[in-house]
Amino acid sequence: MLLESAAHLFVERGYAGTSVNDISDHSGKTSGAIYFHYYSKEKLALAVVREQFATWPQLAALYATPGIPPLEKLVVLSFGVARSLSEDVVARAGARLWAERHGIEAALPTPFNAWASAATRLLTQARMRGELAAGVEPSAAAVTLVCAFFGLCVLTDDLPGGRGWREQLDQWWLLILKSLQADPDPAALLARARARVSL
Amino acid sequence: MLLESAAHLFVERGYAGTSVNDISDHSGKTSGAIYFHYYSKEKLALAVVREQFATWPQLAALYATPGIPPLEKLVVLSFGVARSLSEDVVARAGARLWAERHGIEAALPTPFNAWASAATRLLTQARMRGELAAGVEPSAAAVTLVCAFFGLCVLTDDLPGGRGWREQLDQWWLLILKSLQADPDPAALLARARARVSL
Repeated sequence: MLLESAAHLFVERGYAGTSVNDISDHSGKTSGAIYFHYYSKEKLALAVVREQFATWPQLAALYATPGIPPLEKLVVLSFGVARSLSEDVVARAGARLWAERHGIEAALPTPFNAWASAATRLLTQARMRGELAAGVEPSAAAVTLVCAFFGLCVLTDDLPGGRGWREQLDQWWLLILKSLQADPDPAALLARARARVSL
Repeated sequence: MLLESAAHLFVERGYAGTSVNDISDHSGKTSGAIYFHYYSKEKLALAVVREQFATWPQLAALYATPGIPPLEKLVVLSFGVARSLSEDVVARAGARLWAERHGIEAALPTPFNAWASAATRLLTQARMRGELAAGVEPSAAAVTLVCAFFGLCVLTDDLPGGRGWREQLDQWWLLILKSLQADPDPAALLARARARVSL
């Protein structure tokens, strides 16, 4: 598939290091066909990013599943996104293209606002159920969580201790859930969330 | 100053978008002089990153100041780094070059290991003074804090709510200090830290 070929090359060589000719060689499609469908390398990068967004319906379904307590849902969603950013080539290409966005002549959409809205809604639900600690303001906390989560996903490989994203996210949730839960028991919530996503 | 000129251009146009000729025009030095001193654009980028590291002795001095409680020191250091990443052109160039590191043929040093070590030492000191919450493991928590802090610095401008880094860091510390302090009083600690750096 063309977008997957492009994603592979963007992950390996970055946007500037990948030409439409490279993508043609790698995918077996002619450059002419690529230009016919995508017009330019910018538009192709944009299509890869949009493809990344399209791979998240399972997460959205999970988000809508009734019966899972909201803070647990938040943890489960974070595992899902982190797993996709670690294992899915289109998601990894999207992340690398975003990091290189200033060198790309196209406005790349980002998931951060959607993440922040989803987290705000879940924290608000937790508040209504009496499960959010007093003094935590849902929308401010949601933005903070999204920023921190982004940093964890991006930096994990560059830091000492050789933790993978799973262990790194565990450490993060153990620490922050203590502040978020009205009745703190981070280890128990984390164990339930891990069981749901078979981690 | 040549490195500052280069830093300005790297911040504005990125590494790939900046040529040695551009830096020559902007700095008033000849390309020949630039090549004579730095050999290549890669080496020049490396020199900018090293210059960034050299601008942190004030932070190191603060780090060594006796009499400031360790968790408060951690907060003060985060304000110092965030301020420099927001206001100092060389620090901003360093951050952008790091984001574009895969496209640069030089191994750029990063501050993350040093930050994680500093945070580990401060959390260990807090533990010895009885000021760190039970169950918080200094080195694991330090790595988590560095990752989250990095995410806050990078993403703040891309998220809703229009918070600047000051407010964003406040929100973050209010949330996480509740988990870190043996005797939680985040607002008071934050107020003392802000007073120290005149924020």
